[in-house]
Amino acid sequence: MKILIVGLGVIGGGYAMALKEAGYKEVYGVDKNADTLDKAKKLGIIKEGFTNENEIISKVDLIVLAIYPNLVKKFIIKNKNEFKENTLITDVTGIKELFIHDIIEILPQNMDFVFAHPMAGREKKGIDYATNKVFEGANFLIIEHDKNKEKNLKLIEKLAYEMGFKHVKRTTPKFHDEMIAFTSQLPHVLAVALINSDLDNRNTGEFIGDSYKDLTRIANMNEELWSLLFLGNKENLLNAINSFENEVNKIKKCIEDEDKSGLEELFIKSTKRREML
Amino acid sequence: MKILIVGLGVIGGGYAMALKEAGYKEVYGVDKNADTLDKAKKLGIIKEGFTNENEIISKVDLIVLAIYPNLVKKFIIKNKNEFKENTLITDVTGIKELFIHDIIEILPQNMDFVFAHPMAGREKKGIDYATNKVFEGANFLIIEHDKNKEKNLKLIEKLAYEMGFKHVKRTTPKFHDEMIAFTSQLPHVLAVALINSDLDNRNTGEFIGDSYKDLTRIANMNEELWSLLFLGNKENLLNAINSFENEVNKIKKCIEDEDKSGLEELFIKSTKRREML
Repeated sequence: MKILIVGLGVIGGGYAMALKEAGYKEVYGVDKNADTLDKAKKLGIIKEGFTNENEIISKVDLIVLAIYPNLVKKFIIKNKNEFKENTLITDVTGIKELFIHDIIEILPQNMDFVFAHPMAGREKKGIDYATNKVFEGANFLIIEHDKNKEKNLKLIEKLAYEMGFKHVKRTTPKFHDEMIAFTSQLPHVLAVALINSDLDNRNTGEFIGDSYKDLTRIANMNEELWSLLFLGNKENLLNAINSFENEVNKIKKCIEDEDKSGLEELFIKSTKRREML
Repeated sequence: MKILIVGLGVIGGGYAMALKEAGYKEVYGVDKNADTLDKAKKLGIIKEGFTNENEIISKVDLIVLAIYPNLVKKFIIKNKNEFKENTLITDVTGIKELFIHDIIEILPQNMDFVFAHPMAGREKKGIDYATNKVFEGANFLIIEHDKNKEKNLKLIEKLAYEMGFKHVKRTTPKFHDEMIAFTSQLPHVLAVALINSDLDNRNTGEFIGDSYKDLTRIANMNEELWSLLFLGNKENLLNAINSFENEVNKIKKCIEDEDKSGLEELFIKSTKRREML
Protein backbone atom coordinates (compact mmCIF):
# COMPACT_ATOMS: atom_id res chain seq x y z
CA MET A 1 0.00 0.00 0.00
CA LYS A 2 1.37 3.38 -1.05
CA ILE A 3 0.55 6.07 1.49
CA LEU A 4 0.82 9.81 0.97
CA ILE A 5 0.85 12.19 3.92
CA VAL A 6 -0.03 15.74 2.98
CA GLY A 7 1.37 18.17 5.55
CA LEU A 8 4.34 16.96 7.58
CA GLY A 9 3.64 19.08 10.65
CA VAL A 10 3.39 17.84 14.18
CA ILE A 11 0.56 15.39 13.40
CA GLY A 12 1.50 14.46 9.81
CA GLY A 13 5.10 13.96 10.93
CA GLY A 14 3.89 11.86 13.84
CA TYR A 15 1.85 9.68 11.45
CA ALA A 16 4.94 9.19 9.25
CA MET A 17 6.96 8.09 12.29
CA ALA A 18 4.23 5.79 13.53
CA LEU A 19 3.73 4.22 10.09
CA LYS A 20 7.46 3.62 9.77
CA GLU A 21 7.55 1.90 13.14
CA ALA A 22 4.52 -0.16 12.12
CA GLY A 23 6.52 -1.42 9.15
CA TYR A 24 5.04 0.57 6.26
CA LYS A 25 7.80 1.18 3.70
CA GLU A 26 6.03 3.16 0.99
CA VAL A 27 5.14 6.37 2.72
CA TYR A 28 5.48 9.62 0.75
CA GLY A 29 5.19 13.18 1.93
CA VAL A 30 3.91 16.46 0.56
CA ASP A 31 4.77 19.73 2.24
CA LYS A 32 5.10 23.25 0.92
CA ASN A 33 8.31 23.56 2.93
CA ALA A 34 11.29 21.85 1.24
CA ASP A 35 13.31 21.86 4.49
CA THR A 36 10.58 19.86 6.17
CA LEU A 37 10.73 17.28 3.39
CA ASP A 38 14.52 17.07 3.73
CA LYS A 39 14.21 16.52 7.46
CA ALA A 40 11.57 13.82 6.97
CA LYS A 41 13.75 12.06 4.42
CA LYS A 42 16.80 12.24 6.65
CA LEU A 43 14.74 10.78 9.49
CA GLY A 44 13.84 7.95 7.15
CA ILE A 45 10.13 8.42 7.70
CA ILE A 46 9.25 9.13 4.07
CA LYS A 47 10.52 7.46 0.94
CA GLU A 48 10.28 10.63 -1.10
CA GLY A 49 9.01 14.15 -0.60
CA PHE A 50 7.24 16.59 -2.91
CA THR A 51 6.43 20.28 -2.57
CA ASN A 52 3.55 19.75 -4.97
CA GLU A 53 1.23 16.76 -4.86
CA ASN A 54 0.91 16.63 -8.70
CA GLU A 55 3.83 14.30 -9.10
CA ILE A 56 2.65 11.61 -6.71
CA ILE A 57 -1.07 11.87 -6.17
CA SER A 58 -2.14 9.54 -8.97
CA LYS A 59 0.08 6.76 -7.67
CA VAL A 60 -1.05 6.33 -4.09
CA ASP A 61 -3.70 4.16 -2.42
CA LEU A 62 -4.19 6.10 0.79
CA ILE A 63 -3.91 9.85 1.36
CA VAL A 64 -3.67 11.30 4.87
CA LEU A 65 -4.57 14.97 4.87
CA ALA A 66 -2.76 16.43 7.86
CA ILE A 67 -3.56 20.01 6.90
CA TYR A 68 -5.67 22.83 8.32
CA PRO A 69 -9.45 22.19 8.34
CA ASN A 70 -10.19 24.90 5.78
CA LEU A 71 -7.76 23.34 3.27
CA VAL A 72 -9.27 19.86 3.12
CA LYS A 73 -12.11 20.69 0.75
CA LYS A 74 -9.80 22.82 -1.41
CA PHE A 75 -7.43 19.89 -1.74
CA ILE A 76 -10.17 17.59 -3.03
CA ILE A 77 -11.49 20.15 -5.52
CA LYS A 78 -8.02 20.96 -6.84
CA ASN A 79 -7.10 17.31 -7.35
CA LYS A 80 -10.38 15.69 -8.19
CA ASN A 81 -9.30 14.59 -11.66
CA GLU A 82 -5.90 13.36 -10.51
CA PHE A 83 -6.70 10.71 -7.92
CA LYS A 84 -6.18 7.04 -8.69
CA GLU A 85 -9.39 5.03 -8.80
CA ASN A 86 -10.49 3.78 -5.36
CA THR A 87 -8.10 6.04 -3.49
CA LEU A 88 -8.95 6.23 0.17
CA ILE A 89 -8.58 9.57 1.93
CA THR A 90 -8.48 10.25 5.63
CA ASP A 91 -7.89 13.43 7.62
CA VAL A 92 -6.91 14.48 11.13
CA THR A 93 -8.89 17.66 11.69
CA GLY A 94 -10.53 18.52 14.97
CA ILE A 95 -13.97 19.57 13.67
CA LYS A 96 -16.17 17.70 11.21
CA GLU A 97 -19.78 18.85 10.92
CA LEU A 98 -18.86 22.10 9.14
CA PHE A 99 -17.41 20.54 5.99
CA ILE A 100 -17.99 16.80 6.03
CA HIS A 101 -21.21 16.96 3.96
CA ASP A 102 -19.68 19.30 1.36
CA ILE A 103 -16.74 17.00 0.93
CA ILE A 104 -18.84 13.87 0.55
CA GLU A 105 -20.79 15.65 -2.17
CA ILE A 106 -17.77 16.61 -4.26
CA LEU A 107 -15.82 13.41 -3.73
CA PRO A 108 -15.14 11.62 -7.05
CA GLN A 109 -17.02 8.34 -7.47
CA ASN A 110 -15.26 5.16 -6.36
CA MET A 111 -13.34 7.15 -3.77
CA ASP A 112 -13.95 6.99 -0.08
CA PHE A 113 -13.14 9.46 2.70
CA VAL A 114 -12.84 8.11 6.23
CA PHE A 115 -12.87 11.16 8.49
CA ALA A 116 -10.74 10.71 11.55
CA HIS A 117 -9.61 12.61 14.60
CA PRO A 118 -6.52 11.36 16.43
CA MET A 119 -6.94 12.68 19.98
CA ALA A 120 -3.29 13.46 20.50
CA GLY A 121 -1.18 16.44 19.74
CA ARG A 122 1.41 18.80 21.00
CA GLU A 123 1.47 22.48 21.81
CA LYS A 124 4.18 23.17 19.27
CA LYS A 125 3.90 23.12 15.52
CA GLY A 126 6.19 21.74 12.84
CA ILE A 127 8.04 18.52 12.15
CA ASP A 128 10.69 19.29 14.77
CA TYR A 129 8.07 18.61 17.44
CA ALA A 130 6.50 15.63 15.71
CA THR A 131 6.52 12.36 17.63
CA ASN A 132 4.44 9.21 17.52
CA LYS A 133 4.91 8.80 21.28
CA VAL A 134 1.82 10.95 21.90
CA PHE A 135 -0.34 8.38 20.11
CA GLU A 136 0.44 5.69 22.65
CA GLY A 137 -2.59 5.04 24.77
CA ALA A 138 -4.58 7.79 23.04
CA ASN A 139 -8.12 7.81 21.69
CA PHE A 140 -8.81 7.74 17.95
CA LEU A 141 -12.17 8.82 16.59
CA ILE A 142 -13.63 7.75 13.26
CA ILE A 143 -16.47 9.92 12.05
CA GLU A 144 -18.65 7.67 9.93
CA HIS A 145 -21.00 8.61 7.13
CA ASP A 146 -23.32 6.45 5.06
CA LYS A 147 -21.14 6.40 1.94
CA ASN A 148 -18.22 4.83 3.83
CA LYS A 149 -17.28 1.31 2.83
CA GLU A 150 -16.89 -0.99 5.80
CA LYS A 151 -13.55 -2.32 4.55
CA ASN A 152 -12.16 1.23 4.49
CA LEU A 153 -13.42 1.99 8.00
CA LYS A 154 -11.73 -1.24 9.10
CA LEU A 155 -8.50 -0.28 7.34
CA ILE A 156 -8.24 3.07 9.12
CA GLU A 157 -9.19 1.41 12.38
CA LYS A 158 -6.38 -1.13 11.89
CA LEU A 159 -3.89 1.62 11.01
CA ALA A 160 -4.84 3.54 14.15
CA TYR A 161 -4.09 0.54 16.35
CA GLU A 162 -0.86 -0.12 14.43
CA MET A 163 0.20 3.48 15.04
CA GLY A 164 -0.21 2.98 18.78
CA PHE A 165 -3.66 4.37 19.54
CA LYS A 166 -5.35 2.51 22.33
CA HIS A 167 -9.03 2.97 21.64
CA VAL A 168 -10.86 3.54 18.36
CA LYS A 169 -14.43 4.81 18.50
CA ARG A 170 -16.84 5.33 15.62
CA THR A 171 -19.18 8.28 15.93
CA THR A 172 -21.23 10.80 13.94
CA PRO A 173 -20.11 14.29 12.85
CA LYS A 174 -22.71 15.94 15.08
CA PHE A 175 -21.83 14.01 18.21
CA HIS A 176 -18.11 14.29 17.50
CA ASP A 177 -18.27 18.07 17.37
CA GLU A 178 -20.44 18.29 20.48
CA MET A 179 -18.03 16.11 22.46
CA ILE A 180 -14.90 17.79 21.16
CA ALA A 181 -16.25 21.20 22.12
CA PHE A 182 -16.34 19.89 25.66
CA THR A 183 -13.26 17.65 25.91
CA SER A 184 -10.82 19.60 23.76
CA GLN A 185 -11.94 23.12 22.91
CA LEU A 186 -13.33 24.09 26.33
CA PRO A 187 -10.07 23.09 28.10
CA HIS A 188 -8.22 25.37 25.67
CA VAL A 189 -10.61 28.23 26.48
CA LEU A 190 -9.89 27.72 30.18
CA ALA A 191 -6.13 27.56 29.75
CA VAL A 192 -6.08 30.76 27.69
CA ALA A 193 -8.41 32.62 30.05
CA LEU A 194 -6.49 31.43 33.11
CA ILE A 195 -3.08 32.61 31.96
CA ASN A 196 -4.43 35.79 30.37
CA SER A 197 -6.15 36.73 33.64
CA ASP A 198 -2.80 36.96 35.43
CA LEU A 199 -1.74 40.46 36.44
CA ASP A 200 1.57 41.84 35.22
CA ASN A 201 4.74 42.11 37.31
CA ARG A 202 4.02 39.76 40.13
CA ASN A 203 6.63 37.09 39.32
CA THR A 204 3.92 34.46 39.07
CA GLY A 205 6.47 31.76 38.23
CA GLU A 206 7.74 31.81 41.83
CA PHE A 207 4.29 31.02 43.18
CA ILE A 208 3.19 28.16 40.97
CA GLY A 209 2.85 24.46 41.57
CA ASP A 210 1.99 21.60 39.25
CA SER A 211 -1.68 22.55 39.03
CA TYR A 212 -1.00 25.89 37.34
CA LYS A 213 1.59 24.30 35.06
CA ASP A 214 -0.81 21.52 34.04
CA LEU A 215 -3.74 23.84 33.46
CA THR A 216 -1.80 26.30 31.30
CA ARG A 217 0.30 23.86 29.26
CA ILE A 218 -2.17 24.01 26.38
CA ALA A 219 -2.33 27.83 26.53
CA ASN A 220 0.60 27.55 24.13
CA MET A 221 -1.52 27.49 20.96
CA ASN A 222 -1.22 27.62 17.21
CA GLU A 223 -3.48 30.65 16.82
CA GLU A 224 -4.24 30.10 13.15
CA LEU A 225 -5.45 26.53 13.67
CA TRP A 226 -7.34 27.05 16.91
CA SER A 227 -9.23 30.13 15.77
CA LEU A 228 -10.47 28.03 12.83
CA LEU A 229 -11.45 25.18 15.14
CA PHE A 230 -13.29 27.47 17.57
CA LEU A 231 -15.20 29.36 14.89
CA GLY A 232 -15.96 26.15 13.01
CA ASN A 233 -17.69 24.73 16.06
CA LYS A 234 -19.29 27.92 17.33
CA GLU A 235 -22.60 26.74 18.77
CA ASN A 236 -21.25 23.64 20.46
CA LEU A 237 -18.39 25.55 22.01
CA LEU A 238 -20.62 28.36 23.28
CA ASN A 239 -22.90 25.73 24.85
CA ALA A 240 -19.95 24.06 26.52
CA ILE A 241 -18.68 27.40 27.85
CA ASN A 242 -22.11 28.25 29.21
CA SER A 243 -22.45 24.93 31.02
CA PHE A 244 -18.99 25.42 32.47
CA GLU A 245 -19.87 28.94 33.62
CA ASN A 246 -22.95 27.59 35.40
CA GLU A 247 -20.69 25.28 37.37
CA VAL A 248 -18.27 28.10 38.20
CA ASN A 249 -21.22 30.11 39.46
CA LYS A 250 -22.23 27.28 41.77
CA ILE A 251 -18.76 27.34 43.31
CA LYS A 252 -18.80 31.14 43.54
CA LYS A 253 -22.16 31.12 45.28
CA CYS A 254 -20.91 28.62 47.87
CA ILE A 255 -17.86 30.80 48.54
CA GLU A 256 -19.96 33.97 48.83
CA ASP A 257 -22.42 32.25 51.16
CA GLU A 258 -19.58 30.52 53.06
CA ASP A 259 -21.44 27.29 52.38
CA LYS A 260 -18.83 24.69 53.34
CA SER A 261 -21.02 21.64 52.82
CA GLY A 262 -22.14 22.97 49.44
CA LEU A 263 -18.51 23.23 48.35
CA GLU A 264 -17.77 19.78 49.69
CA GLU A 265 -20.63 18.32 47.66
CA LEU A 266 -19.25 19.85 44.47
CA PHE A 267 -15.77 18.51 45.27
CA ILE A 268 -17.09 15.04 46.05
CA LYS A 269 -18.89 15.03 42.69
CA SER A 270 -15.76 16.14 40.80
CA THR A 271 -13.61 13.58 42.63
CA LYS A 272 -15.99 10.74 41.76
CA ARG A 273 -16.10 11.79 38.13
CA ARG A 274 -12.32 12.08 37.89
CA GLU A 275 -11.82 8.68 39.44
CA MET A 276 -14.26 7.15 36.95
CA LEU A 277 -12.31 8.51 33.96
CA MET B 1 18.38 18.45 65.59
CA LYS B 2 15.28 16.57 66.72
CA ILE B 3 12.39 17.07 64.33
CA LEU B 4 8.75 16.25 64.97
CA ILE B 5 6.28 15.99 62.11
CA VAL B 6 2.67 16.32 63.22
CA GLY B 7 0.37 14.69 60.68
CA LEU B 8 1.89 11.98 58.48
CA GLY B 9 -0.42 12.48 55.54
CA VAL B 10 0.62 13.05 51.96
CA ILE B 11 2.67 16.16 52.78
CA GLY B 12 3.88 15.24 56.28
CA GLY B 13 4.84 11.79 55.01
CA GLY B 14 6.63 13.39 52.06
CA TYR B 15 8.59 15.63 54.45
CA ALA B 16 9.60 12.58 56.49
CA MET B 17 10.85 10.84 53.34
CA ALA B 18 12.70 13.92 52.15
CA LEU B 19 14.31 14.51 55.54
CA LYS B 20 15.43 10.90 55.68
CA GLU B 21 17.03 11.20 52.24
CA ALA B 22 18.67 14.45 53.32
CA GLY B 23 20.33 12.52 56.15
CA TYR B 24 18.26 13.59 59.18
CA LYS B 25 18.15 10.70 61.62
CA GLU B 26 16.05 12.06 64.48
CA VAL B 27 12.68 12.54 62.91
CA TYR B 28 9.61 11.66 64.99
CA GLY B 29 5.99 11.48 63.94
CA VAL B 30 2.62 12.23 65.48
CA ASP B 31 -0.55 10.97 63.90
CA LYS B 32 -3.94 10.09 65.31
CA ASN B 33 -3.88 6.94 63.19
CA ALA B 34 -1.70 4.19 64.68
CA ASP B 35 -1.55 2.30 61.37
CA THR B 36 -0.04 5.34 59.73
CA LEU B 37 2.66 5.47 62.40
CA ASP B 38 3.39 1.77 61.90
CA LYS B 39 3.73 2.29 58.16
CA ALA B 40 6.05 5.25 58.66
CA LYS B 41 8.21 3.29 61.05
CA LYS B 42 8.37 0.31 58.69
CA LEU B 43 9.39 2.66 55.89
CA GLY B 44 12.19 3.87 58.17
CA ILE B 45 11.15 7.51 57.79
CA ILE B 46 10.47 8.13 61.48
CA LYS B 47 12.45 7.01 64.49
CA GLU B 48 9.36 6.72 66.66
CA GLY B 49 5.68 7.47 66.33
CA PHE B 50 3.12 8.79 68.81
CA THR B 51 -0.65 9.06 68.64
CA ASN B 52 -0.45 11.90 71.13
CA GLU B 53 2.16 14.63 71.02
CA ASN B 54 2.41 14.82 74.86
CA GLU B 55 5.14 12.26 75.04
CA ILE B 56 7.54 13.90 72.64
CA ILE B 57 6.74 17.56 72.25
CA SER B 58 9.01 18.85 75.01
CA LYS B 59 12.02 17.10 73.52
CA VAL B 60 12.14 18.41 69.96
CA ASP B 61 13.83 21.42 68.35
CA LEU B 62 11.71 21.74 65.23
CA ILE B 63 8.03 20.94 64.78
CA VAL B 64 6.49 20.62 61.33
CA LEU B 65 2.72 21.00 61.49
CA ALA B 66 1.42 19.10 58.48
CA ILE B 67 -2.20 19.33 59.60
CA TYR B 68 -5.33 21.09 58.39
CA PRO B 69 -5.23 24.90 58.50
CA ASN B 70 -7.91 25.15 61.19
CA LEU B 71 -5.93 22.89 63.53
CA VAL B 72 -2.69 24.87 63.62
CA LYS B 73 -3.82 27.47 66.15
CA LYS B 74 -5.52 24.81 68.28
CA PHE B 75 -2.27 22.87 68.40
CA ILE B 76 -0.33 25.87 69.73
CA ILE B 77 -2.94 26.70 72.37
CA LYS B 78 -3.19 23.11 73.57
CA ASN B 79 0.57 22.68 73.89
CA LYS B 80 1.75 26.14 74.83
CA ASN B 81 3.13 25.09 78.19
CA GLU B 82 4.78 21.96 76.85
CA PHE B 83 7.17 23.24 74.18
CA LYS B 84 10.89 23.23 74.81
CA GLU B 85 12.43 26.68 74.97
CA ASN B 86 13.38 28.07 71.56
CA THR B 87 11.41 25.47 69.66
CA LEU B 88 10.95 26.41 66.05
CA ILE B 89 7.62 25.62 64.41
CA THR B 90 6.81 25.56 60.74
CA ASP B 91 3.68 24.61 58.84
CA VAL B 92 2.63 23.61 55.32
CA THR B 93 -0.83 25.13 54.96
CA GLY B 94 -2.04 26.75 51.79
CA ILE B 95 -3.51 29.96 53.28
CA LYS B 96 -1.88 32.30 55.76
CA GLU B 97 -3.52 35.71 56.26
CA LEU B 98 -6.52 34.27 58.11
CA PHE B 99 -4.65 32.94 61.14
CA ILE B 100 -1.02 34.05 61.00
CA HIS B 101 -1.56 37.13 63.20
CA ASP B 102 -3.55 35.20 65.81
CA ILE B 103 -0.84 32.60 66.02
CA ILE B 104 1.99 35.10 66.38
CA GLU B 105 0.05 36.68 69.24
CA ILE B 106 -0.37 33.48 71.24
CA LEU B 107 3.05 32.03 70.50
CA PRO B 108 5.06 31.48 73.72
CA GLN B 109 8.03 33.81 74.11
CA ASN B 110 11.37 32.54 72.82
CA MET B 111 9.58 30.46 70.22
CA ASP B 112 9.49 31.23 66.56
CA PHE B 113 7.05 30.17 63.83
CA VAL B 114 8.28 30.20 60.25
CA PHE B 115 5.18 29.88 58.11
CA ALA B 116 5.79 27.95 54.93
CA HIS B 117 3.94 26.67 51.90
CA PRO B 118 5.53 23.87 49.90
CA MET B 119 4.02 24.23 46.42
CA ALA B 120 3.75 20.52 45.78
CA GLY B 121 1.12 18.00 46.57
CA ARG B 122 -0.87 15.12 45.29
CA GLU B 123 -4.55 14.57 44.61
CA LYS B 124 -4.75 11.68 47.05
CA LYS B 125 -4.57 11.83 50.80
CA GLY B 126 -2.77 9.67 53.34
CA ILE B 127 0.69 8.26 53.82
CA ASP B 128 0.20 5.62 51.11
CA TYR B 129 0.38 8.42 48.54
CA ALA B 130 3.19 10.34 50.21
CA THR B 131 6.35 10.86 48.19
CA ASN B 132 9.17 13.37 48.26
CA LYS B 133 9.49 13.10 44.48
CA VAL B 134 6.89 15.87 44.06
CA PHE B 135 9.21 18.31 45.85
CA GLU B 136 11.88 18.01 43.20
CA GLY B 137 12.01 21.19 41.20
CA ALA B 138 9.07 22.71 43.08
CA ASN B 139 8.61 26.15 44.59
CA PHE B 140 8.73 26.70 48.35
CA LEU B 141 7.25 29.82 49.90
CA ILE B 142 8.24 31.29 53.26
CA ILE B 143 5.73 33.74 54.67
CA GLU B 144 7.74 36.15 56.79
CA HIS B 145 6.58 38.24 59.72
CA ASP B 146 8.48 40.77 61.82
CA LYS B 147 8.96 38.51 64.83
CA ASN B 148 10.83 35.90 62.77
CA LYS B 149 14.52 35.45 63.60
CA GLU B 150 16.71 35.50 60.52
CA LYS B 151 18.56 32.33 61.59
CA ASN B 152 15.24 30.45 61.70
CA LEU B 153 14.17 31.71 58.29
CA LYS B 154 17.57 30.55 57.00
CA LEU B 155 17.16 27.16 58.65
CA ILE B 156 13.80 26.48 56.99
CA GLU B 157 15.18 27.77 53.70
CA LYS B 158 18.11 25.34 53.99
CA LEU B 159 15.78 22.46 54.87
CA ALA B 160 13.61 23.23 51.82
CA TYR B 161 16.59 23.01 49.50
CA GLU B 162 17.79 19.85 51.23
CA MET B 163 14.34 18.31 50.72
CA GLY B 164 14.63 18.90 46.98
CA PHE B 165 12.73 22.15 46.43
CA LYS B 166 14.22 24.20 43.65
CA HIS B 167 13.26 27.74 44.51
CA VAL B 168 12.57 29.35 47.89
CA LYS B 169 10.80 32.69 47.94
CA ARG B 170 10.06 34.91 50.94
CA THR B 171 6.80 36.81 50.83
CA THR B 172 4.11 38.41 53.01
CA PRO B 173 0.86 36.76 54.16
CA LYS B 174 -1.22 39.18 52.11
CA PHE B 175 0.68 38.71 48.87
CA HIS B 176 0.95 34.97 49.43
CA ASP B 177 -2.80 34.58 49.71
CA GLU B 178 -3.45 36.80 46.71
CA MET B 179 -1.03 34.80 44.55
CA ILE B 180 -2.20 31.41 45.77
CA ALA B 181 -5.80 32.30 45.00
CA PHE B 182 -4.68 32.69 41.40
CA THR B 183 -2.03 29.99 40.96
CA SER B 184 -3.53 27.21 43.06
CA GLN B 185 -7.14 27.78 44.09
CA LEU B 186 -8.43 29.13 40.77
CA PRO B 187 -7.06 26.12 38.82
CA HIS B 188 -8.94 23.89 41.25
CA VAL B 189 -12.14 25.86 40.65
CA LEU B 190 -11.69 25.36 36.90
CA ALA B 191 -10.97 21.65 37.18
CA VAL B 192 -14.05 21.05 39.34
CA ALA B 193 -16.32 23.18 37.16
CA LEU B 194 -15.00 21.56 33.98
CA ILE B 195 -15.63 17.98 35.03
CA ASN B 196 -18.90 18.79 36.79
CA SER B 197 -20.21 20.46 33.63
CA ASP B 198 -20.04 17.20 31.71
CA LEU B 199 -23.39 15.68 30.80
CA ASP B 200 -24.24 12.18 31.93
CA ASN B 201 -24.14 9.09 29.73
CA ARG B 202 -22.05 10.21 26.83
CA ASN B 203 -18.99 8.00 27.45
CA THR B 204 -16.77 11.05 27.70
CA GLY B 205 -13.70 8.88 28.34
CA GLU B 206 -13.72 7.75 24.70
CA PHE B 207 -13.48 11.33 23.46
CA ILE B 208 -10.73 12.75 25.62
CA GLY B 209 -7.13 13.63 24.90
CA ASP B 210 -4.32 14.83 27.12
CA SER B 211 -5.78 18.30 27.54
CA TYR B 212 -8.91 17.08 29.33
CA LYS B 213 -6.87 14.67 31.43
CA ASP B 214 -4.41 17.40 32.44
CA LEU B 215 -7.10 19.93 33.25
CA THR B 216 -9.18 17.59 35.39
CA ARG B 217 -6.38 15.78 37.25
CA ILE B 218 -6.76 18.12 40.24
CA ALA B 219 -10.56 17.73 40.24
CA ASN B 220 -9.78 14.79 42.51
CA MET B 221 -9.88 16.76 45.73
CA ASN B 222 -9.81 16.32 49.47
CA GLU B 223 -13.11 18.11 50.07
CA GLU B 224 -12.50 18.78 53.75
CA LEU B 225 -9.19 20.53 53.14
CA TRP B 226 -10.11 22.44 50.01
CA SER B 227 -13.36 23.81 51.35
CA LEU B 228 -11.35 25.25 54.27
CA LEU B 229 -8.76 26.72 51.90
CA PHE B 230 -11.39 28.28 49.63
CA LEU B 231 -13.42 29.81 52.46
CA GLY B 232 -10.28 30.95 54.27
CA ASN B 233 -9.25 32.98 51.23
CA LYS B 234 -12.68 34.14 50.14
CA GLU B 235 -12.06 37.66 48.81
CA ASN B 236 -8.86 36.82 46.94
CA LEU B 237 -10.42 33.78 45.36
CA LEU B 238 -13.57 35.62 44.28
CA ASN B 239 -11.37 38.32 42.72
CA ALA B 240 -9.36 35.70 40.85
CA ILE B 241 -12.53 34.00 39.60
CA ASN B 242 -13.93 37.34 38.43
CA SER B 243 -10.76 38.21 36.50
CA PHE B 244 -10.82 34.78 34.93
CA GLU B 245 -14.47 35.16 33.95
CA ASN B 246 -13.65 38.47 32.25
CA GLU B 247 -11.13 36.65 30.10
CA VAL B 248 -13.61 33.87 29.27
CA ASN B 249 -16.07 36.54 28.22
CA LYS B 250 -13.52 38.06 25.83
CA ILE B 251 -13.14 34.67 24.16
CA LYS B 252 -16.93 34.16 24.07
CA LYS B 253 -17.46 37.56 22.46
CA CYS B 254 -14.91 36.77 19.74
CA ILE B 255 -16.65 33.46 19.03
CA GLU B 256 -20.10 35.08 18.94
CA ASP B 257 -18.84 37.85 16.65
CA GLU B 258 -16.80 35.38 14.56
CA ASP B 259 -13.85 37.65 15.21
CA LYS B 260 -10.95 35.48 14.06
CA SER B 261 -8.22 38.07 14.54
CA GLY B 262 -9.55 38.86 18.02
CA LEU B 263 -9.26 35.20 18.96
CA GLU B 264 -5.77 35.00 17.46
CA GLU B 265 -4.66 37.97 19.57
CA LEU B 266 -5.84 36.25 22.75
CA PHE B 267 -4.06 33.04 21.75
CA ILE B 268 -0.84 34.89 20.91
CA LYS B 269 -0.95 36.54 24.33
CA SER B 270 -1.53 33.23 26.12
CA THR B 271 1.23 31.53 24.11
CA LYS B 272 3.75 34.25 24.97
CA ARG B 273 2.85 34.07 28.64
CA ARG B 274 3.12 30.28 28.71
CA GLU B 275 6.49 30.34 27.01
CA MET B 276 7.76 32.90 29.56
CA LEU B 277 6.84 30.64 32.51
